[in-house]
Amino acid sequence: MNVTISLPQPADRDYTITIDELPPIRIDAKAVIVTNPKVSGLHLQRLLERIEAKEVYIVVIPDGEAYKTMETIEFILDRLFDHRLDRKSVLVAFGGGVIGDMTGFAASIFQRGIDFIQVPTTLLAQVDASVGGKTGINNRFGKNLVGAFHQPKAVYIDTHWLKTLPKREFAAGVAEIVKMAVMFDADFFCWLETHDLNDEKSLKEAIRRSVELKARVVNEDEKEKGVRAVLNYGHTFAHVIENFSGYGTYLHGEAVSIGMVMANELAIAAGLFSREEAERVRKLLQRYGLPVDYSIDSADRFYEHFFLDKKSHDNTITFIVPESIGRYRMLAGPERELVLSVLKRFEKGNEG
Amino acid sequence: MNVTISLPQPADRDYTITIDELPPIRIDAKAVIVTNPKVSGLHLQRLLERIEAKEVYIVVIPDGEAYKTMETIEFILDRLFDHRLDRKSVLVAFGGGVIGDMTGFAASIFQRGIDFIQVPTTLLAQVDASVGGKTGINNRFGKNLVGAFHQPKAVYIDTHWLKTLPKREFAAGVAEIVKMAVMFDADFFCWLETHDLNDEKSLKEAIRRSVELKARVVNEDEKEKGVRAVLNYGHTFAHVIENFSGYGTYLHGEAVSIGMVMANELAIAAGLFSREEAERVRKLLQRYGLPVDYSIDSADRFYEHFFLDKKSHDNTITFIVPESIGRYRMLAGPERELVLSVLKRFEKGNEG
Repeated sequence: MNVTISLPQPADRDYTITIDELPPIRIDAKAVIVTNPKVSGLHLQRLLERIEAKEVYIVVIPDGEAYKTMETIEFILDRLFDHRLDRKSVLVAFGGGVIGDMTGFAASIFQRGIDFIQVPTTLLAQVDASVGGKTGINNRFGKNLVGAFHQPKAVYIDTHWLKTLPKREFAAGVAEIVKMAVMFDADFFCWLETHDLNDEKSLKEAIRRSVELKARVVNEDEKEKGVRAVLNYGHTFAHVIENFSGYGTYLHGEAVSIGMVMANELAIAAGLFSREEAERVRKLLQRYGLPVDYSIDSADRFYEHFFLDKKSHDNTITFIVPESIGRYRMLAGPERELVLSVLKRFEKGNEG
Repeated sequence: MNVTISLPQPADRDYTITIDELPPIRIDAKAVIVTNPKVSGLHLQRLLERIEAKEVYIVVIPDGEAYKTMETIEFILDRLFDHRLDRKSVLVAFGGGVIGDMTGFAASIFQRGIDFIQVPTTLLAQVDASVGGKTGINNRFGKNLVGAFHQPKAVYIDTHWLKTLPKREFAAGVAEIVKMAVMFDADFFCWLETHDLNDEKSLKEAIRRSVELKARVVNEDEKEKGVRAVLNYGHTFAHVIENFSGYGTYLHGEAVSIGMVMANELAIAAGLFSREEAERVRKLLQRYGLPVDYSIDSADRFYEHFFLDKKSHDNTITFIVPESIGRYRMLAGPERELVLSVLKRFEKGNEG
């Protein structure tokens, strides 16, 4: 099945997301596959069998968020020049979100922008990074602070790659799917409650619906000036959790799972959301083994950390919360006391 | 006087080039001026008097093409994070082409793109870099090989800064003005023959006409896929000259001056252009002290170098030549013998 992503002008940027077994990909130019040792070891051969290009080169970069740096971008760019790529050449991102973000960024600045194709190999990258055109790297000031908006020419989502994905990483992808349903689509949420994503057919359907929802949001707000902020549901809390736990303790999707539970508690405390619906969300997350509890050392310190985040201008934070399943609400600058009272419930000793 | 640059969709990218004494610039956010020691020493105070922003910071980077590197971009980005800039902040490029290219590139990738304003202080930057949205850096593989298309929010061209500009640099800017006239506008060429750009009023008029011509070309072809290539008139030769002489021997505009003379000779040899019109071009260039002669060591080696340039795909080069003053012609893949016969006339001992 295909999802077409229509972008605002200029119109030649529209592209198709193919959710199916990887078809042959024909590239009438040089192609460079950017990947990591893990993905290439498991899957490179299958990808190579399906790529036809004038010349195909492979660039392997180290695995992990720690290498999502300008240094790695320069390494990629140098290889592109070594292989004498020109403006018609195409990069192929073959891996998870880190590979996608960096390949897209390298493509966006190589000779002022060349095409790239995404072949995401994790569920998270398939439902999240495949739509939106966000590319970038981390630096010592934070995550994704340097980058570009650069749309892929095509995205190929094949659930085949997920067979080798660790269970935790699979669940981390499910968290983002649940996020989309809670924010935008009550029917989809009910559907998720009654289907098992470990079943291949249901999984593909869930990916399709999730991608379509995200495409609708991004199309309305390509450069993240309005509704796109809703995609940060759970993320405001998740960023602080990731920061306190040290990156690597929780997978991003796991931190988002906890973050959604916290955001729901805030919504309840603000009188916006029902306990009953919050329980349904919690239950769905738990079904996939996602964490829904967290022990905060100090609610005050946790609160202060919101303001270190790049998304907070002028010392107000907007929390994204559900007002019912399928309907988001932007809660701009809630009282400090209200937020603290929620955080305190997660403090060590107060849990549950 | 103002020139409005209309860009293809999305429409909110349109911007105005003001050719006049620098007016007060109001920025409702933090602003960072990026400049070099020379320009800041001579002119920073005057600029600061006219900028109103929430906070103003200055970032000074070393002067010259040698520092147009990713390292300098990272230096600029680090300062932006140090000063806690956000997505609403604005960069101000205050200097020549190198400053403009790097400030624009830093703006394009800081938090996936923020606004920037150009205040070009050389004639070359005023007529050339102020229109087109090209930003970028050099690396060991060549010039401007990494970068982005990123349009400024506004350009302020004030001829005041040119009073301290060395004569040679002024002439280098004139070369680009002559280029625009020869390619696109016979009337403008006649006007240049009968006016002196050392006169303030004529200079402003020439800048306006030049900028308007470039805007027309760029508007038709923002991402350089067609007619924009015409702006490379003289440049195909100039790049080789710069490469052979070592960067720094000739200013870019000087190499372009020689390159236009060579391109004209090629046009004559191909039976496209008249000796008489070529003489008019040479005379106009000479009037501003621009070089029009060059001694090639080996015509063969010079020829081979065309193919090392990034603009040549698949071993054909397109030379941009005039077919009359004011009308360009793309000469795709001329016979090697024809090009060599022209180059040989510039070989040591054969000059004149």
